[in-house]
Amino acid sequence: MGCYDAMFHQKIKDYIKEHREDYIAFLQKLVQQPSTVGNELGAQQLLAERLKSQGCEVDIWEPDYSRLSQHPYFNSTRADFTGSPNVVSVIKGTGGGKSIILNGHVDVVPEGDRNTWTVEPYSGEIKDGKLYGRGSTDMKGGNLAILIAFEALCNLGIPLKGDVIFQSVIEEESGGSGTLACIERGYRADVALIPEPSEMRIFPKQQGSVWFRVTVDGQSAHGGTRYEGVSAIEKGWIVFNEIMKLEKRRNDRITDPMYADNPIPIPINIGRFDSGYFPSAVPDRAIIEGRYGIAPGETIDAAKQEFMQCMATLDQIDSWFTEHPVQVEWPGLRLPPGGIDLEHPFLGVLTQNFKNVTKEDPKMEGSTWGTDGGLLTTVADIPSVIFGPGTTHMAHFTDEYVELDNIFECAEIIALSVIEWCGVRI
Amino acid sequence: MGCYDAMFHQKIKDYIKEHREDYIAFLQKLVQQPSTVGNELGAQQLLAERLKSQGCEVDIWEPDYSRLSQHPYFNSTRADFTGSPNVVSVIKGTGGGKSIILNGHVDVVPEGDRNTWTVEPYSGEIKDGKLYGRGSTDMKGGNLAILIAFEALCNLGIPLKGDVIFQSVIEEESGGSGTLACIERGYRADVALIPEPSEMRIFPKQQGSVWFRVTVDGQSAHGGTRYEGVSAIEKGWIVFNEIMKLEKRRNDRITDPMYADNPIPIPINIGRFDSGYFPSAVPDRAIIEGRYGIAPGETIDAAKQEFMQCMATLDQIDSWFTEHPVQVEWPGLRLPPGGIDLEHPFLGVLTQNFKNVTKEDPKMEGSTWGTDGGLLTTVADIPSVIFGPGTTHMAHFTDEYVELDNIFECAEIIALSVIEWCGVRI
Repeated sequence: MGCYDAMFHQKIKDYIKEHREDYIAFLQKLVQQPSTVGNELGAQQLLAERLKSQGCEVDIWEPDYSRLSQHPYFNSTRADFTGSPNVVSVIKGTGGGKSIILNGHVDVVPEGDRNTWTVEPYSGEIKDGKLYGRGSTDMKGGNLAILIAFEALCNLGIPLKGDVIFQSVIEEESGGSGTLACIERGYRADVALIPEPSEMRIFPKQQGSVWFRVTVDGQSAHGGTRYEGVSAIEKGWIVFNEIMKLEKRRNDRITDPMYADNPIPIPINIGRFDSGYFPSAVPDRAIIEGRYGIAPGETIDAAKQEFMQCMATLDQIDSWFTEHPVQVEWPGLRLPPGGIDLEHPFLGVLTQNFKNVTKEDPKMEGSTWGTDGGLLTTVADIPSVIFGPGTTHMAHFTDEYVELDNIFECAEIIALSVIEWCGVRI
Repeated sequence: MGCYDAMFHQKIKDYIKEHREDYIAFLQKLVQQPSTVGNELGAQQLLAERLKSQGCEVDIWEPDYSRLSQHPYFNSTRADFTGSPNVVSVIKGTGGGKSIILNGHVDVVPEGDRNTWTVEPYSGEIKDGKLYGRGSTDMKGGNLAILIAFEALCNLGIPLKGDVIFQSVIEEESGGSGTLACIERGYRADVALIPEPSEMRIFPKQQGSVWFRVTVDGQSAHGGTRYEGVSAIEKGWIVFNEIMKLEKRRNDRITDPMYADNPIPIPINIGRFDSGYFPSAVPDRAIIEGRYGIAPGETIDAAKQEFMQCMATLDQIDSWFTEHPVQVEWPGLRLPPGGIDLEHPFLGVLTQNFKNVTKEDPKMEGSTWGTDGGLLTTVADIPSVIFGPGTTHMAHFTDEYVELDNIFECAEIIALSVIEWCGVRI
């Protein structure tokens, strides 16, 4: 560590220490904004106002639905983005350095049944060093980590050579239109870091996922003469099993060491099996819906093709499917896989700074879920890495929380990594 | 055939021939009344007015919900019976003869999607000797057959010794409260005939049925780490299979010759399998609903006991069920089995008159569905037989129809059987 590095490190440490209570209070305010899909405005205004008050230029805009919806990677359940702006702020570099995007989503999934929460879902209540609330871990705690790093670099006046782009985006949980809109607006960088809740692990590989729906036909009959019908439940179970065999074949191919400890690196999860409505009738239709994991490096189209091929050969298992082929649709979520090459220099920078701050080696894994990194990598060719403070298993769950110490440690590592990556004009 | 018998037969034949067009027109009016559950009033008023106009005394009453709902065999989806009367009329015998109930239900199942019908569902349209419409076969055509027999006996002044009780009841399709109310009102006879759509076959045995619901627990997890959860679909499939094995065990025991040609005499039909709602979550619950056939001679309680026992031993198949036993409920339909002894004299009377009229032997079978005969047999100890004109496979289906010739042939056989059964005071 050179003397400049040591000086910057101390400055960052001091900045974080000095502003800790202020940032915790801000995170509480951010969590208190219930920024579910369509309700992101309050949280985005908080962020934009804060950045402006520190002298940062802020780009705040509502994505143009009619234009964005033409994009081949567009995927949304909405009909427009009115009242749901993105917020982007840039520290312009002096030139000659590498640039970085720090990207986090402000949207949160719904809180579900409030009665199952032991804290108010949008309270931001703090107990034992943990801040509770929907979105605290996924991913407002992560957003705070990149905000701290960004503001520290801005306020400390460290003359970076490369650009630092802070992005608070909408819609990650619903298909990624916020990040897609940032790409369409022209924001580019040499690398992207997304502080999704990896629990301080580094995820150089992020799997993608698409949702599928398979419709299986049976043949109705009265329950008292059920042998005159064909149960869509029984035919649906054949389809279920073939999908599970496909999952095995696909996962047997995964040799990526990032997934070495993962029993099923790219799972196919069947999340819905719905057949029949009347106890005394043979059900004539089954709907099977699920989430289809896409391997890092695989294209969505190739993965879909393999699935379709599997469904097209069901008649080899049961001749029923010759006359009654299943229908396959791809409604809902579609997240391409993302990632960064294991030899990419930013990964070295991040790893080294992790060691410097924590005195430990980081855990490196492949993510089990999709992120906006998939769009950055696939659409904009920006290598993307996940590294965030949130508690992985609390994402989308009741009593979601984030550990405050992790946020500040993460912010410190990110700030130092950005300084090293972007370079400083001495 | 004695000379009195021949005389009565000719009288009946002539009566039916003479009134054929009148009865067809009346059946059209009856089918044009969309007497789904809660909407039976119009059809019942038509019947009551007709019977009154012929000098018959008519008992028309709305079942007393608060009283009836206390009955152990009460089973209904309703909260009261306002506007849904039963209609009963009695030809009082001179004494010393056997009595008979002629029972038919006036309620019809909903027509479903009208777009799948090629005729108007409540038109009563006639084409090629068939009268079309919801309820034509199940069972207004049958009701017309017993009405013709009843009115013929009434109008021809044949002095019967035993009582003939005509019953047009509500609620058969929804649990049998109409017939239960007739029993509670005190109507009794030595035998009952129900002209459900048996397609001119005689059903001395009628299976019962109950509906069940099994709730199977899984354990939720994110789809990307599905191996951390337990799929309720997979556990539900184990339950599905055990229920199917139970069906096999139960049917292997059935040696009744009435079911000799039936591949599954008392089927268990699983009509609904519903698990999960979100493609990217492991489903933590599956609902399995079905229809559980009850053998003639078996009690509902004994059959339920066998089902519960099967569900209680699931842990022998999969230890998951030790900590997560399934829940079993019995919501909805509950029809006890019914029947008449194969040696019962009325069966001989019916069979002989069938031969006299058609010059053929009747087909004798066990029914594949429950009827109100189950309540008459189980609750009131009245042997019950099914014999009706309707087209079996059209019941509850689109483009439901009844063959008009069958109705009149059936009416003739029933009228002659009643005369012989009740006896005539000469």
